[in-house]
Amino acid sequence: MATPRFTVTYRIRSDATSIEARAQAIAVEQSVEMPVSAIAEAEILRDIVGRVEGIDPRGDDVFDVRIGLATATVGEDAGQFLNMLFGNSSLLEDVALVDVDVSADLVAAFGGPRHGIEGFRRRSGAYGRALTCSALKPQGVTSARLAQLAGQFARGGIDFIKDDHGLADQPYSPFAERVAEIASAAGTARYVPSLSGDLDAMRRQIDIALRHGIDTVMIAPMLAGWATMRTLVRQYPELAFFAHPTMGGAARIIPDLLIGKLFRLLGADAVIFPNYGGRFGYSPATCRRLGDRARRMWDGVRPSLPVPAGGMTLERVPEMLDFYGPDAMLLIGGSLLAARERLTEETAAFTRAVARHSYR
Amino acid sequence: MATPRFTVTYRIRSDATSIEARAQAIAVEQSVEMPVSAIAEAEILRDIVGRVEGIDPRGDDVFDVRIGLATATVGEDAGQFLNMLFGNSSLLEDVALVDVDVSADLVAAFGGPRHGIEGFRRRSGAYGRALTCSALKPQGVTSARLAQLAGQFARGGIDFIKDDHGLADQPYSPFAERVAEIASAAGTARYVPSLSGDLDAMRRQIDIALRHGIDTVMIAPMLAGWATMRTLVRQYPELAFFAHPTMGGAARIIPDLLIGKLFRLLGADAVIFPNYGGRFGYSPATCRRLGDRARRMWDGVRPSLPVPAGGMTLERVPEMLDFYGPDAMLLIGGSLLAARERLTEETAAFTRAVARHSYR
Repeated sequence: MATPRFTVTYRIRSDATSIEARAQAIAVEQSVEMPVSAIAEAEILRDIVGRVEGIDPRGDDVFDVRIGLATATVGEDAGQFLNMLFGNSSLLEDVALVDVDVSADLVAAFGGPRHGIEGFRRRSGAYGRALTCSALKPQGVTSARLAQLAGQFARGGIDFIKDDHGLADQPYSPFAERVAEIASAAGTARYVPSLSGDLDAMRRQIDIALRHGIDTVMIAPMLAGWATMRTLVRQYPELAFFAHPTMGGAARIIPDLLIGKLFRLLGADAVIFPNYGGRFGYSPATCRRLGDRARRMWDGVRPSLPVPAGGMTLERVPEMLDFYGPDAMLLIGGSLLAARERLTEETAAFTRAVARHSYR
Repeated sequence: MATPRFTVTYRIRSDATSIEARAQAIAVEQSVEMPVSAIAEAEILRDIVGRVEGIDPRGDDVFDVRIGLATATVGEDAGQFLNMLFGNSSLLEDVALVDVDVSADLVAAFGGPRHGIEGFRRRSGAYGRALTCSALKPQGVTSARLAQLAGQFARGGIDFIKDDHGLADQPYSPFAERVAEIASAAGTARYVPSLSGDLDAMRRQIDIALRHGIDTVMIAPMLAGWATMRTLVRQYPELAFFAHPTMGGAARIIPDLLIGKLFRLLGADAVIFPNYGGRFGYSPATCRRLGDRARRMWDGVRPSLPVPAGGMTLERVPEMLDFYGPDAMLLIGGSLLAARERLTEETAAFTRAVARHSYR
């Protein structure tokens, strides 16, 4: 029986005469990382060495190369999964990771969100419309000030209030103090604290959050390490997880793959990403694909909730709702905070716009 | 008194008329991530918001922008350090991280290698010459086979034998079994097993390694998470650490900064990197800078041992020794393994070439 494999697609800049050799070299780099001629064992050549499954020209000396890698090289280790996907090849300037066809055994090993879109709707009672979110910032202010902002967001009717991803465990708003104050100020809104530090620190933070009735946390997979995230998703099945894209280095891993598909597979119930037309350069096409990948049918993997963000404004709410549909969470941060003393009213205008929208 | 800051340099593609606004936008993105006009607190504007310290044109619509970030935003959390350095800006296609002027308090917080170059020399008794290293591969073979290769490397007189970074805890060579067999086969050579999984798994692996008398391990900071690495460096002061560059995504973080300086700061006693003229596209100039950064005087931070690798051959040993000097470790993997049944003799030729070299 053939060894189970998963297929990884790399986009390679190369002239046509050398693409076959390049493809073969990447297949070796991402598997045995040594001259194939030096491998004596027939079963390694058959079962472990990466296999070029196809080369598709995309024009202008760019090719998509599909390589089959042995599932046995990954096991159930999410860090090793990333290593096999793009480890050494991430060092090659002319190679980008563009797709992964995740095999059934890897789906079973990682399993995706525990809660996903339906879980968020059930918890917040938000059906038939998009969900709403804002962010607590700037870092540097006191926990009391963040709690005051949370109270204003909550009175404006917002569903979720997340920490800015810059909030870690700094002395100006230490995690334990901040979570206690914000959780009690957030009322009916769900407060989503951001995890930081190593696995031990994140467990301590989760224990604090759970004591305050919190059921959702945020993690940055590219900072924490994929293995750290997987361990937490497995250890705390009652928690829902937002994935933050920080350090996503989107130029080398195609963002809809990294954020829409891989963070979903790791167990992100919601995936935050920079919306088109904001502070980051994602195109509408990238955002469309990212949203599709987060939500589309995937046997054994729940949908993740797409959370477009990054410089969004109240004015863009109708356009975003039409673009993403109701299975989305709109995150508006700085633009709400800019209302200052009118924060509650501005938040209420945001939540009303979402509640009343007629989808095109 | 002014708040302590560290200076980060970003290389930005931009036309000259908008570079000032771009620089200011990045300073905000990497600090408070919200409209500055929405910040009421004077002390946040003064102490926390990133400050543009200089803009240096590099020609062709490229600028180096220096931004001062508050040390208080980092604390002692290495993951948060990476987040502040390049978190959201890593999502901008036209921005690269090119330098960090690490402040004294961050040096004190992270501290760099526990052992560094001198520690490797003392442990292996290798003075006045470069150190030597090879790698155990391919993944997929049994622990017994890897141990056999280790024995041949050792009899050839090599200093260090590291796991291939693809070796995790797979069923074909589980960590505990592999470490036991290789440690006993490695003789006078030092075996460097590769850590994988989450923090808990890495601690279990280190405990196993310590029981077998191992004093050096390898970790991939970009897979494990920087906080994970820092915790292990701090928890096991007797261990020396090799840093593996996998997932280094060098196109967006300048490699001599990431590998030569930042991995050193995190505590890597040795930093592995792709040498010029091998399988990866690093230039001689990049490698020169990387080697310099790993070793140059840095108050309070020991030098790290540069380990050029990635497709190196015996023929290139003299050239590499002249390029890096004796404070280096040469790592030749696949090319030694290609000797197959003559592995011991080929290894001996390698170690002889290093021992007898007269530096230009």
